[in-house]
Amino acid sequence: MQISPSEDKIPVVDVTSSPPSSGEGLYFCDGRRKVDYVLVFHRRHHNSIRSLAGAAIPQDELSIVSNGNFPLTAGSNVVPGRGGGLQREEAASVGEVFMELGNARGNEPMEAAAQEMQLIRQEFEANLLEAGLEIERDREVKTHGPSFTRVHAPWPVLCREAEFLKIKVPTKTSYELKEEKGFGSSMSTVWRKLNQPFQPKVSQQDHGSTKFISHCFSRDKLHLYNITSKDTFFDNATRARIVYEILRRTVCVRTCQTIGISTLIAKGVYDTAFPLHDGDYKVVGQPEERNDRQVLHEEWARYSAFYKYQPIDLVRKYFGEKIGLYFAWLGVYTQLLILASIVGIIVFGYGVATMDTDIPSLEMCNDRLNFTMCPLCDGACDYWHLSNACGTARASHLFDNPATVFFAIFMSLWAVLFLEQWKRRQISLSFSWDLTGMDEDEEHPRPKYETILLQKRQKKQEKKKKKKKKGPEKQEDGTVTGKDRWRQKLLSAMAAGVPAHEDKLTWKDRLPGYFMNVSSILFMFGLTFSAVFGVIIYRITISALMAMSPDPETKSNVRVTVTSTAVIINLVVILILDEIYGSVALWLTELEIPKTDTTFEEHLILKAFLLKFMNAYAPIFYVAFFKGRFAGRPGNYVYVFNNFRMEECAPGGCLIELCIQLSIIMLGKQLIQNNIFEIGIPKLKKLIRALKEKKSTSKESDEERPPQQWNQDYALVPFEGLTPEYMEMIIQFGFVSLFVASFPLAPLFALLNNVIEIRLDAKKLVTELRRPVAARAKDIGIWYNILSGMGKLSVIINAFVISFTSDFVPRLVYQYMFSPTGTMHGFIDHTLSYFNVSNFRPGTAPHSTEYGNISVCRYKDYREPPWSPDAYQFSKQFWCVLSARLAFVILFQNLVMFLGLLVAWLIPDVPKTIVEQLKREKKLLVNLFLQEEKEKLQLIQSLFVKDATHHPDKEAPNQGQGLLIPGRYSTLPLGPTSGSGGGGPRARSRAASFSQFSGNTSSLPRKDHSNSRHTAV
Amino acid sequence: MQISPSEDKIPVVDVTSSPPSSGEGLYFCDGRRKVDYVLVFHRRHHNSIRSLAGAAIPQDELSIVSNGNFPLTAGSNVVPGRGGGLQREEAASVGEVFMELGNARGNEPMEAAAQEMQLIRQEFEANLLEAGLEIERDREVKTHGPSFTRVHAPWPVLCREAEFLKIKVPTKTSYELKEEKGFGSSMSTVWRKLNQPFQPKVSQQDHGSTKFISHCFSRDKLHLYNITSKDTFFDNATRARIVYEILRRTVCVRTCQTIGISTLIAKGVYDTAFPLHDGDYKVVGQPEERNDRQVLHEEWARYSAFYKYQPIDLVRKYFGEKIGLYFAWLGVYTQLLILASIVGIIVFGYGVATMDTDIPSLEMCNDRLNFTMCPLCDGACDYWHLSNACGTARASHLFDNPATVFFAIFMSLWAVLFLEQWKRRQISLSFSWDLTGMDEDEEHPRPKYETILLQKRQKKQEKKKKKKKKGPEKQEDGTVTGKDRWRQKLLSAMAAGVPAHEDKLTWKDRLPGYFMNVSSILFMFGLTFSAVFGVIIYRITISALMAMSPDPETKSNVRVTVTSTAVIINLVVILILDEIYGSVALWLTELEIPKTDTTFEEHLILKAFLLKFMNAYAPIFYVAFFKGRFAGRPGNYVYVFNNFRMEECAPGGCLIELCIQLSIIMLGKQLIQNNIFEIGIPKLKKLIRALKEKKSTSKESDEERPPQQWNQDYALVPFEGLTPEYMEMIIQFGFVSLFVASFPLAPLFALLNNVIEIRLDAKKLVTELRRPVAARAKDIGIWYNILSGMGKLSVIINAFVISFTSDFVPRLVYQYMFSPTGTMHGFIDHTLSYFNVSNFRPGTAPHSTEYGNISVCRYKDYREPPWSPDAYQFSKQFWCVLSARLAFVILFQNLVMFLGLLVAWLIPDVPKTIVEQLKREKKLLVNLFLQEEKEKLQLIQSLFVKDATHHPDKEAPNQGQGLLIPGRYSTLPLGPTSGSGGGGPRARSRAASFSQFSGNTSSLPRKDHSNSRHTAV
Repeated sequence: MQISPSEDKIPVVDVTSSPPSSGEGLYFCDGRRKVDYVLVFHRRHHNSIRSLAGAAIPQDELSIVSNGNFPLTAGSNVVPGRGGGLQREEAASVGEVFMELGNARGNEPMEAAAQEMQLIRQEFEANLLEAGLEIERDREVKTHGPSFTRVHAPWPVLCREAEFLKIKVPTKTSYELKEEKGFGSSMSTVWRKLNQPFQPKVSQQDHGSTKFISHCFSRDKLHLYNITSKDTFFDNATRARIVYEILRRTVCVRTCQTIGISTLIAKGVYDTAFPLHDGDYKVVGQPEERNDRQVLHEEWARYSAFYKYQPIDLVRKYFGEKIGLYFAWLGVYTQLLILASIVGIIVFGYGVATMDTDIPSLEMCNDRLNFTMCPLCDGACDYWHLSNACGTARASHLFDNPATVFFAIFMSLWAVLFLEQWKRRQISLSFSWDLTGMDEDEEHPRPKYETILLQKRQKKQEKKKKKKKKGPEKQEDGTVTGKDRWRQKLLSAMAAGVPAHEDKLTWKDRLPGYFMNVSSILFMFGLTFSAVFGVIIYRITISALMAMSPDPETKSNVRVTVTSTAVIINLVVILILDEIYGSVALWLTELEIPKTDTTFEEHLILKAFLLKFMNAYAPIFYVAFFKGRFAGRPGNYVYVFNNFRMEECAPGGCLIELCIQLSIIMLGKQLIQNNIFEIGIPKLKKLIRALKEKKSTSKESDEERPPQQWNQDYALVPFEGLTPEYMEMIIQFGFVSLFVASFPLAPLFALLNNVIEIRLDAKKLVTELRRPVAARAKDIGIWYNILSGMGKLSVIINAFVISFTSDFVPRLVYQYMFSPTGTMHGFIDHTLSYFNVSNFRPGTAPHSTEYGNISVCRYKDYREPPWSPDAYQFSKQFWCVLSARLAFVILFQNLVMFLGLLVAWLIPDVPKTIVEQLKREKKLLVNLFLQEEKEKLQLIQSLFVKDATHHPDKEAPNQGQGLLIPGRYSTLPLGPTSGSGGGGPRARSRAASFSQFSGNTSSLPRKDHSNSRHTAV
Repeated sequence: MQISPSEDKIPVVDVTSSPPSSGEGLYFCDGRRKVDYVLVFHRRHHNSIRSLAGAAIPQDELSIVSNGNFPLTAGSNVVPGRGGGLQREEAASVGEVFMELGNARGNEPMEAAAQEMQLIRQEFEANLLEAGLEIERDREVKTHGPSFTRVHAPWPVLCREAEFLKIKVPTKTSYELKEEKGFGSSMSTVWRKLNQPFQPKVSQQDHGSTKFISHCFSRDKLHLYNITSKDTFFDNATRARIVYEILRRTVCVRTCQTIGISTLIAKGVYDTAFPLHDGDYKVVGQPEERNDRQVLHEEWARYSAFYKYQPIDLVRKYFGEKIGLYFAWLGVYTQLLILASIVGIIVFGYGVATMDTDIPSLEMCNDRLNFTMCPLCDGACDYWHLSNACGTARASHLFDNPATVFFAIFMSLWAVLFLEQWKRRQISLSFSWDLTGMDEDEEHPRPKYETILLQKRQKKQEKKKKKKKKGPEKQEDGTVTGKDRWRQKLLSAMAAGVPAHEDKLTWKDRLPGYFMNVSSILFMFGLTFSAVFGVIIYRITISALMAMSPDPETKSNVRVTVTSTAVIINLVVILILDEIYGSVALWLTELEIPKTDTTFEEHLILKAFLLKFMNAYAPIFYVAFFKGRFAGRPGNYVYVFNNFRMEECAPGGCLIELCIQLSIIMLGKQLIQNNIFEIGIPKLKKLIRALKEKKSTSKESDEERPPQQWNQDYALVPFEGLTPEYMEMIIQFGFVSLFVASFPLAPLFALLNNVIEIRLDAKKLVTELRRPVAARAKDIGIWYNILSGMGKLSVIINAFVISFTSDFVPRLVYQYMFSPTGTMHGFIDHTLSYFNVSNFRPGTAPHSTEYGNISVCRYKDYREPPWSPDAYQFSKQFWCVLSARLAFVILFQNLVMFLGLLVAWLIPDVPKTIVEQLKREKKLLVNLFLQEEKEKLQLIQSLFVKDATHHPDKEAPNQGQGLLIPGRYSTLPLGPTSGSGGGGPRARSRAASFSQFSGNTSSLPRKDHSNSRHTAV
């Protein structure tokens, strides 16, 4: 363990004096080793004391601690010394800390905690070195502020981990993609030309007509891969992923008994950890080559690129598969929204075009028909003429016409189409991104889970101990060591990946959490409903008050004013509750103590979705299905709170109200969430932060040096997952699919929003967030299920909207059953029932009326006239229309479900080209390996033969050996192919039978050749 | 190529003189080589001539042609000679044929065909030898009759093919299955004890508490497997499968250019080919060990074992996975039917118990209420009293009561439960049968497809040729060689497994087939409908005729007679059409020219299902939804064919008619199909065949020798796939699920049928059919989709049956909307409308009446009374009830669909125990391999070290070599694990990270050790 003291100090470079010439802070101070990850902790105030003490060693300003594996450093040759070097470094720093401890003795207990943190960091970083990483640390004299630990992964570590993680890398082998011939070819050329302006300008190496085959990285097959430089073979995202993988599983046993960086961050040992961006995103001057971040910023993350395709492969390369899949999904969704928007515009156009020829609205506007309607409230309201409602009737026709029915069917199928299309796209992507056959990683438990589990074990143990030795006091020490022991066990169990049977939380432990969950969610539901109800009350009271006002101006604007203000209140409530529910869902999910991050995310998503869905759609559901259904009839209005009448729909029908509600909530939510929450608030936060920073660093600003990349990235906001983005889109998908029958322009607005949303999210990721670790993902996970569930729900909701909210079915029924002429003439008359004003209960008749002597007024309902024996009961027409409505629901639901199944069945999940390419790739790979193995076999045989000829006395055993190894080679060769989803062995068996066939088809003429093949196989 | 002449003749044994002592004809005549497969061809009559000519060589009665690879024969050592031996054998027989040719010159062209067959057989068998199989042939002097070619696969061939086919075999490694502790353990003991009598007595080697891990067979890992004897390591089914695999892909290039035995059979070269049973199924005496066939026969394939579980593992072992899955599926279905039957009986019991308290039927039987009903036909019929229909009303209540609604919901959920349960079972089975990660085999095109393809190419070529050299006549030779060339190309393309782009049939080629398909299916649909319609006409006419008969006895029995005879006619029609449709589906599918057998099977199943489903359910659908809906009302009856009234349901409701229809068709179909088609006809066929055989062989019977196993098996019926069995069960599933609301006892009858069906099918397989090749299958394929489709359909059909066929909804509506007392009293009165007899059109009033002076009669419908302004229009009640019915459909459908989703979601697809076992197995396997590789590494290193110490001058290069190979070993070892669905590499990476963890958790105390590990990994 003794080493020369010089070894420890060699790689000291003073960064302040010599900033690295190139790479702008992306490298260690030697300018060659890339910084793959940065760990940050904040020096607390006590460090200022320490800095005074530490001022004695100012030459130690920045030290690179290397584990000696780095091939270029001088110390690397002395391999046995490396552990020793580490030991010494550590010992030194421990000593230092104790020195500090002496200095800071009189300070608060916070000091002790900080020192413990320091020790944990020491151990953790030592373990990182152990794992082969290289570390560079700032040791500047800084009173406080962030301290950066840069991590670099050298080539051997990268190789090792790439093999473990089964990262697929392109091989040298490529093949030509099939070119279409004849007409198809010229068509595709034309298409490509037309498409040219929409393609982002991204240099694509392997695209075009050749494709390089990818294969799992293996250190034995280095010659297969296209390695031009060991520094750039793995791109930065992959390097960061590899380092993160190591950080994730590195343990701290001595000081704190935990696994992984995330626990340490949770414990506050580190503040944060992140990989570096590829450099600045702003292009300064005219560089010969833009880095990936710059390319993304230029071609993707700006609003002016809104019309372009996304460079999805580059996004995946830079941010990883998970984020890549999100943007690909958003892209597919947005593309398909174009189709939906066009159809929606056509449907809306049909409404506009037929507005003037629509008989019911013409009849409603016709003054000559002159229906005298009953007053809308008791006492205060007067009779009125139906032609007053002419405006809403005409507007209503815009959205309530036969084309809407077609549109509802279309949109239900569109939802199916979208899901199928996305499935295809996902499979294409997982093929071109080599995600097929990806296994999910074994996950470590979350820090919270661990802590709770530990507490549980401790309690159990304490109980046991109490039982055992009753009488004597609790032994504090014993508990601690016990805790340690359990901790140890837990760790080893976790490390082995085997869930020890006792070491898990049962439902009993989670019971309070579940209970809290259920009750909170019920409470939230209640809250949502009361908010909706509150707005209803608002509407009722305000409209009643305004109706009673003597001002005719006020009176005429009742409906418009009330509706618009109420919807705006609704919107505000929704937006506020949305934010609250987001946090509540997070809090509730924490209470559940899910074991892994995946479970956590899933539960969180489900809860948040449930709450936000309820919140966003409750008022819409109310308007669609409940408003006006419980209003009663003239003379017998339903009252709430003594004297406020239940509200009714506008005379033009409920659909127009639904439309207003839907469009305002949808647009408002999108605009406000996009503008305020996604653009405004982050900007504001940044501003505040910048101001703070300025204030605090103003005193030191004179000694500032140019900020490094890690400084810049640290200033950015951490990436917090895609859940909010997905959630926003899913709720929007609901607006587009669930009630689309009432608002055909919804897809158009969604499209406009999404075009911005893509660029907004892109901008955020590229310029405003720290770079996320490139996480892998095979699919979009639970979101797909939610989408498909919403698709199913949309069928039934649209069926109900069309049959119950719209007037479509009553019109059909009138036309084919009741109309004397077979046309729509007389429809309005048919929908209005009669009311004998003498039947007003005392006091409910209008106090004053402008309409003179009226004996009968009309109201919109299907009820028996006053002269029938069952006066004011539901009439036969009512039941007839109801039957038709219900029959329509059944017909619509089953027809659309069947068509949906048909569409899903007609669109194959795996595109044909992919199937063919997969087959070809497999064959090529098998050929490649067979060829390679053959060559190796020959090589080894020739070696052995040489060996044997050199030593003729040893021939026999050597020959045996020689036979053993070729045999091994000829059967084992394809092992690593198995990474491609078990395709290897299969392909191999096929290859084998192939050789068998080709041997046999030509076997008789050249028999001996085929024989030799058989023995070879 | 020269060999000693003795080699060819050595293994000649005269079977007639020395029958093998043991194995009873399961072995070659040497008594050691197992007969794995038998090829049979029939010697045609001309052979009698040949036999006269061949009588010159009587010593050549039975020759074993061995390719010399068999380790026990003397000739096996001379490997280079084997090709020569083959050549000679072949040349000899070719010469022989030509000799024959000379003899038979004058005979018919049939002779020439027979000789060609002979040549093809020669080549094919030569190629089999080439592939390493061993062959034994009868060369007895037989005028005609079957000639058997026995095939044996020696150990090396088995090993090679087992590796290709990735057959999983048990390793020596085993692990203890987790025992439950505490209460669970004692419960399971009790359960096991209770279950004991139901368990079949089958010796289970690896069951109990330990399980042997399976792994893909690999010749390099022989030491891992538990090989006690090379003869029995692969069981007979596996051996047969391996041989079949070789037979399937062996080509005949020279003589007929085809691939595989199935084409040869199709061409008539061979009559049939089958593997042998394990011996006789009858246990004679008290043998120490029964063979598998005997065990199966004793414990499974007999009716007296009906109460026992099936020995499903043994079934799978003996018949292969596909048949095993069928019986497992049937088992799960039958087990779950027990539950459904019990609930069904309870529901029926409820009906029986409440029959006497049901108010509507009491009212109907009450003479005092005395409803005078309108005549059921014009003129001839008289008025009648409703109390006459008392009987059917009471019977109707048995099936039409609230419990039925519950039962319909229950059965819909039961269907979901069944599918989910089967999914679980299938996953369990595919785990314990090692089917996980099984790839589908590359399939060869069907012979028919090949032929058509060839014709197409030929035509194309001829066209080209015509274009090229117009003028001269067609060159017959050119066409033939062209054909040959294309054939060759085709073969090589097929062999390569790459579908050459041009070499496939397009939709254009299939157009006539498709057209024929569509038109035939439409025609069949028409046929079915006309059959149903015919029966309706029969019913109408007969009932009209009988109603007009003066005999009161006849009159009173009208309904019973007509209904029962009509149903029987229906049944007969269904049974006949069922058989016809089966053949039609086959014929139509052949017309489609599907490429592979899988496609063929799928298309056939879909078509047959469609036709048979239609056939079986059309009359039931008619009764459920159409009967009585178009009957009109008194005074305005609907007539068909001038004067036959459309039929009405019985006064007790349509449900009872549906129930009768359903039960008779279901029971009749099951009984008749089981008894006649499945037992009777095969027996009859066998009898006829036996008689024929007797007649033809009577002359030679004196020189009979004890029949060999292949003779016995040849006498059995060939196995023709599971499609009919599945189809029968699926149709039955339809009876159980689709209309179950009308007949709660359907599950019980299905259960009774299935208990028999299992044993019947088992008996057939064990005793009456030739042994099928053990086909692999991962799942039950398309049947699952059909089942799940029927499950979905059943929800909506049951919804309609309950709401429209039964009286459930009208009763509810009456009780809650119209009843003055809130009870069911008065329901009957409410459902009957009034008819004023003066409204009878002239001539339609009853000619004579017993009921004196009647002014108003009643009929069952909801119509306005004669005194209403809209007399005889549908009344408000009608629309009200209709709305309620439709609302019920919507409610039922969506509720059940939601519950179904919930059930499917609640039952996890993969049982928890399986997940855990899988994890454990993976870990064990990884450990095993790691251990093994370590040992090997050490071995090789020590060898190299020895080598190096022997030759110190050569140390450096050898060291390099030594380093290369361990490196290879340390990274390649897990290749073959990949057979387990890519599990290998994953497990490996886990193991790697495991070692990393264990290294790290204890890293600081023993640093150098963990370091060395890192370099090793």
